[in-house]
Amino acid sequence: MTTTSDRTTARDTRGDGAAASTSIPAAGVTPSMPAGEVRIDVADLSHQLLGRWADLRAKARATAGEERFHRIEGLSLTEHRERVMDQVKALVEIGQVHRGFPTRLGGQDDAGGNLAGFEELVAADPSLQIKAGVQWGLFASAILHLGTPEQQDRLLPGAMDASVPGAFAMTETGHGSDVASIATTATYDVATQEFVVHTPFRGAWKDYLGNAAVNGTAAVIFAQLVTNGVNHGVHAFYAPIRETTADGGAGAFLPGVGGEDDGLKGGLNGIDNGRLHFTHVRVPRENLLARYGQVAEDGTYTSPIDSPGRRFFTMLGSLVQGRVSLDGAAITASKLGLATAVTYGNQRRQFNGASAVDEVVLLDYGTHQRRLLPRIAQTYAMHFAHDRLLDLFDTVFSGENDTPESREDLETMAASLKPMSTWFALDTLQEAREACGGAGFLTENRLTSLRADLDVYVTFEGDNTVLLQLVAKRLLADYGKEFKDITPGQMARFVVEQAADAALHRTPLKRAAQTLADVGDPRRAVGHLKDVGNQRDLLTDRVETMVADVAAALRPAQKATPEKAAELFNEHQHELIEMAKAHADLLHWEAFTQALDTIEDAGTRQVLTWVRDLFGLTTIERNLAWYLINGRLSAQRARTVSGYVDRLVARLRPHAQDLVDAWGYGPEHLRAKIASGAEQVRQDEAREYYRQLRASGDEPVSEKSIKAREKAAAKAAARGGSKVARR
Amino acid sequence: MTTTSDRTTARDTRGDGAAASTSIPAAGVTPSMPAGEVRIDVADLSHQLLGRWADLRAKARATAGEERFHRIEGLSLTEHRERVMDQVKALVEIGQVHRGFPTRLGGQDDAGGNLAGFEELVAADPSLQIKAGVQWGLFASAILHLGTPEQQDRLLPGAMDASVPGAFAMTETGHGSDVASIATTATYDVATQEFVVHTPFRGAWKDYLGNAAVNGTAAVIFAQLVTNGVNHGVHAFYAPIRETTADGGAGAFLPGVGGEDDGLKGGLNGIDNGRLHFTHVRVPRENLLARYGQVAEDGTYTSPIDSPGRRFFTMLGSLVQGRVSLDGAAITASKLGLATAVTYGNQRRQFNGASAVDEVVLLDYGTHQRRLLPRIAQTYAMHFAHDRLLDLFDTVFSGENDTPESREDLETMAASLKPMSTWFALDTLQEAREACGGAGFLTENRLTSLRADLDVYVTFEGDNTVLLQLVAKRLLADYGKEFKDITPGQMARFVVEQAADAALHRTPLKRAAQTLADVGDPRRAVGHLKDVGNQRDLLTDRVETMVADVAAALRPAQKATPEKAAELFNEHQHELIEMAKAHADLLHWEAFTQALDTIEDAGTRQVLTWVRDLFGLTTIERNLAWYLINGRLSAQRARTVSGYVDRLVARLRPHAQDLVDAWGYGPEHLRAKIASGAEQVRQDEAREYYRQLRASGDEPVSEKSIKAREKAAAKAAARGGSKVARR
Repeated sequence: MTTTSDRTTARDTRGDGAAASTSIPAAGVTPSMPAGEVRIDVADLSHQLLGRWADLRAKARATAGEERFHRIEGLSLTEHRERVMDQVKALVEIGQVHRGFPTRLGGQDDAGGNLAGFEELVAADPSLQIKAGVQWGLFASAILHLGTPEQQDRLLPGAMDASVPGAFAMTETGHGSDVASIATTATYDVATQEFVVHTPFRGAWKDYLGNAAVNGTAAVIFAQLVTNGVNHGVHAFYAPIRETTADGGAGAFLPGVGGEDDGLKGGLNGIDNGRLHFTHVRVPRENLLARYGQVAEDGTYTSPIDSPGRRFFTMLGSLVQGRVSLDGAAITASKLGLATAVTYGNQRRQFNGASAVDEVVLLDYGTHQRRLLPRIAQTYAMHFAHDRLLDLFDTVFSGENDTPESREDLETMAASLKPMSTWFALDTLQEAREACGGAGFLTENRLTSLRADLDVYVTFEGDNTVLLQLVAKRLLADYGKEFKDITPGQMARFVVEQAADAALHRTPLKRAAQTLADVGDPRRAVGHLKDVGNQRDLLTDRVETMVADVAAALRPAQKATPEKAAELFNEHQHELIEMAKAHADLLHWEAFTQALDTIEDAGTRQVLTWVRDLFGLTTIERNLAWYLINGRLSAQRARTVSGYVDRLVARLRPHAQDLVDAWGYGPEHLRAKIASGAEQVRQDEAREYYRQLRASGDEPVSEKSIKAREKAAAKAAARGGSKVARR
Repeated sequence: MTTTSDRTTARDTRGDGAAASTSIPAAGVTPSMPAGEVRIDVADLSHQLLGRWADLRAKARATAGEERFHRIEGLSLTEHRERVMDQVKALVEIGQVHRGFPTRLGGQDDAGGNLAGFEELVAADPSLQIKAGVQWGLFASAILHLGTPEQQDRLLPGAMDASVPGAFAMTETGHGSDVASIATTATYDVATQEFVVHTPFRGAWKDYLGNAAVNGTAAVIFAQLVTNGVNHGVHAFYAPIRETTADGGAGAFLPGVGGEDDGLKGGLNGIDNGRLHFTHVRVPRENLLARYGQVAEDGTYTSPIDSPGRRFFTMLGSLVQGRVSLDGAAITASKLGLATAVTYGNQRRQFNGASAVDEVVLLDYGTHQRRLLPRIAQTYAMHFAHDRLLDLFDTVFSGENDTPESREDLETMAASLKPMSTWFALDTLQEAREACGGAGFLTENRLTSLRADLDVYVTFEGDNTVLLQLVAKRLLADYGKEFKDITPGQMARFVVEQAADAALHRTPLKRAAQTLADVGDPRRAVGHLKDVGNQRDLLTDRVETMVADVAAALRPAQKATPEKAAELFNEHQHELIEMAKAHADLLHWEAFTQALDTIEDAGTRQVLTWVRDLFGLTTIERNLAWYLINGRLSAQRARTVSGYVDRLVARLRPHAQDLVDAWGYGPEHLRAKIASGAEQVRQDEAREYYRQLRASGDEPVSEKSIKAREKAAAKAAARGGSKVARR
């Protein structure tokens, strides 16, 4: 009996939910769960989620939790920039950032581990993450990947120890995603054996460059390499841009270099983004980063890669690591937002439902659950897919399997996942902020700042819409190869040519999805949408059908003029993007399903299977019209989807706190007052006040209840009266 | 021939689009339109869109365009607050803000006109709009609507001329949307004839109050009125809270009053939001705002409204004006964002499609059109619905038709529209910012700041989710009354009781929609989704069916325990909100359709009819699954919806600039560098550079083209060779 009663009490406390976060240590304790019911082993899952580079990730996360790396709100632009620059230097001191570089230069040749750690910095301050990304992920990486060993030895040390803060001068005001069209030129002058770097017009100014406004003393400049009257396309040049002052800071621009501060931005104001322009700036011949293209003293151009197109995409290949890490960072940001909203939603009460005494905990409202739980599920799916992306990244960048095909698979997978997770992070942080009401809008609760900082993730390092088009073109190209009889080579070529804006062609993309698919549960029983086989069929079928449909629609392009072909392509651009999103949904779902097999604790696996189902079903629900129109679901069955989702949401509600706790972010990462337990203290104080008031006998009677009593009495009297009359 | 060629040129320039904005005055000039094609009369439409209070609105818009009222970016918290406080005082000087107050106190008794003007302030700085809203829309309005004439005479002048900046102390940290449950008490002390205002615990602190952190010297405090041991519910009390310094500023807190600064927020940092708490603060009896409840010297409570519930909702009734004006302001913000994105999208070029020379203007991309044009259509729909809402507001607040029924209709309509337009504004500003790429993220282009400021609009003055639930409950209550045989009285009563969180019950809501519906085109021909009758049927049917379905699902609640009933209600909360959104969609569509009849210019009416169709069809497209599941659309017909939408989008593309220009916001309102014509100047400069380069004969040859020629030559040689061989 004692047990039962305890259990009941625990259940009541759970309605409260907050008890789990204040009175009881969060991890592993789920007071709402009656004995015998499944539950998550939070500590165990939390460890598993650290992934392949668990120790490195845990260490980086601890670093992100250190106060000295935190963002301080309310700093001026200048103060925030200075703080972040100092933090960048502190990262060097603690040896956080060199893991991905060559061992001979003090690195560890550990590409995957480096990225796993780097992603965690977003929890400290997204400005710090991106400023570090500019210095090591772009500037130093360009030297590493585009330079010769001699150039690496000469130029990397300063870039690595941040004594030379550098800009990655690729993007121009007039050309964002279309790097091939940049207008800056680097013309070889055989007389002096120098390149003359020049900005021909305002639209060719380099723009949005971190380190360009204040701190940068050097830059890797991307420009059209012209020698002997021939333009060999975009190449990278290393050049100092500012004097280095006596104290090691950045001084005035060097002759011929000019620039402008991008000023305030919608977020990431700890980074000094700016513009650069060059007026006949002379760069010595040996500063052309020459791994993929050399110019001899006499101006003769040679390259180990004969095709200019292929050379261009190879040189841009290292950019993929930025996309990979943004995927990881965006998922972390979503986790921070959801953990805050769920913790608060388990403590905060508003409106009394049926109970006369207690108000209802926010997370017990159906709408509140619908707002947050499917997002938790999607975050898990994204987490597991990101793990696979990191694997693929490490395989390629460690050299373990660095082939054109594996690079292209990596690039396509990154181009699929980064748009989805960065858009999702913005929506999720907004939903979290709204779920916390007015409190969510206060900077002390951090959600709005995180969202503002994450905003630009959806358009930088490859605009999301542009990336998804690349994915779509890759899907079509693969389809063209697989079904040559249906869509002849010319069609495939058309698509591939269109895809020429990035290195995403030539190998079957489906491999990636397929590999994942083969691991999962092979059951294909009909009948239930909850069945894993049916979920897979529905999600896969959608991608394949969309690809086939678009391919058929684009087929006339092969016989059309280039203008007509472009027009046709443009008409179907919207569908292409939807198709790429469907492909990403499938990647997420497959990765989640694959991960379930690796979970040993039965309770954890059961709960996460429901979470996977919730992700699968909400994905299907979002695209229900498509399934109906294409006859994949009957109206009868489609009608049940939302019902299933509602039931899953209700079933998962008691696990909500465990699910967000397992992500392993503590108060030093959340840094939201409302998620600190302060709300629970307020609720407890209010309840105690009312309890004492009732006990005192001094509680005022409400006019409402008096009126209700009078009304009832009058009614009774009237009934009595009429009875008398009838008698 | 000349004409034809001119026309062609004009058409080409339009691909450019920017010509319209730079070389040629924008209004009314649409160079893309071949003679004979329909077009918008921009000047005419622009005037019509100014609406019923055209002169007032135009004047307020001009005020919003004055530099002294603009937001300056990058100010510190303190500087921004001071600037906005100064602007508020400047608004008094130019007589902008007293129109809604009584003539005897210097106002003009013009409720509608006042609001129409007030909404425009958002274009200057949303902080200014909301700070003005706090001072006149909340603080002074509370005195006006809840005070007796004597109190108005005594307290309004200082509130009106802003010599007494005041806080509207309603919301508590522990209670946002649930005002009835606030915990602050005002207990009458018969010995001194004072109320003792007291904050019993931390959760009862007043929170998020504009003017509370710094400027406020008085407040209207909402508290539970207790006299003679009875709690008569929430009433409002006027009390000074800070000393007034010699120079008219705010000094130290008065005894018993305390508070805290809310600090930085996600936006609106020109407003000094803060917290207030009261420790046995004594307020003279005559400062209970006594229109709806008086306490006699001996402590006897009387009220002209007998029912405590009805009294409460009456007192809260003036809050509706905040919701009405937020609807208007949010729509304006969407217009500013779309005008910026469309102007830039008509000038900015990226990637070359089929043309070897010219890159493609962003707005010529299918995706870009799909992102922006449906939002333009929805903004028009919202604009016209807002006009109807203002009408209804003016009818009630002018006293022309101030009945409980009309008030409830007004409150329901405001509760329907405000959530939709404020959410829409956030999504639209985000879409606009992304459509402008990295440039959209720079503060100099204003989109991110506008979005940040608008963020809180979705949860303040009634949380959007809570408001939509009120709408849903009202719809159910009306349904209950209309179909008593299907859903008996007890069900209706249950719903009405649930609705008791705001004054939204008792009269058929459908009236509002119905009134609008009767004006539109009565044709109900089948066959085409473009047909106005079919659009109306589909949109109306959805609302009615959803209401009937939810009502049926909730029917068991009438026989259930309160706990079970609450549970059942909670299970359907998500559907209730979807139902309320469907109702708002219908209101928007009907208002748009009604407005079409008032447009005299045939070309304008034609184009706007397409815009209305685009709104109707995208609304149907968004809910396509529902129509399919419920058998309202066949799969066959549903399949055509997206095709229709695509065609409408393409048809409207050449009108995009006209459509946003007609909203009448100039550069002094947009204040985005990218919408200033700067991009066009850059594009022109770049084109001229390349033209001259080509003409000079110095243009480098691209390695790519050399390789392509070599390849072709090799192929030809091989063909020649094999021919020889075959011979």
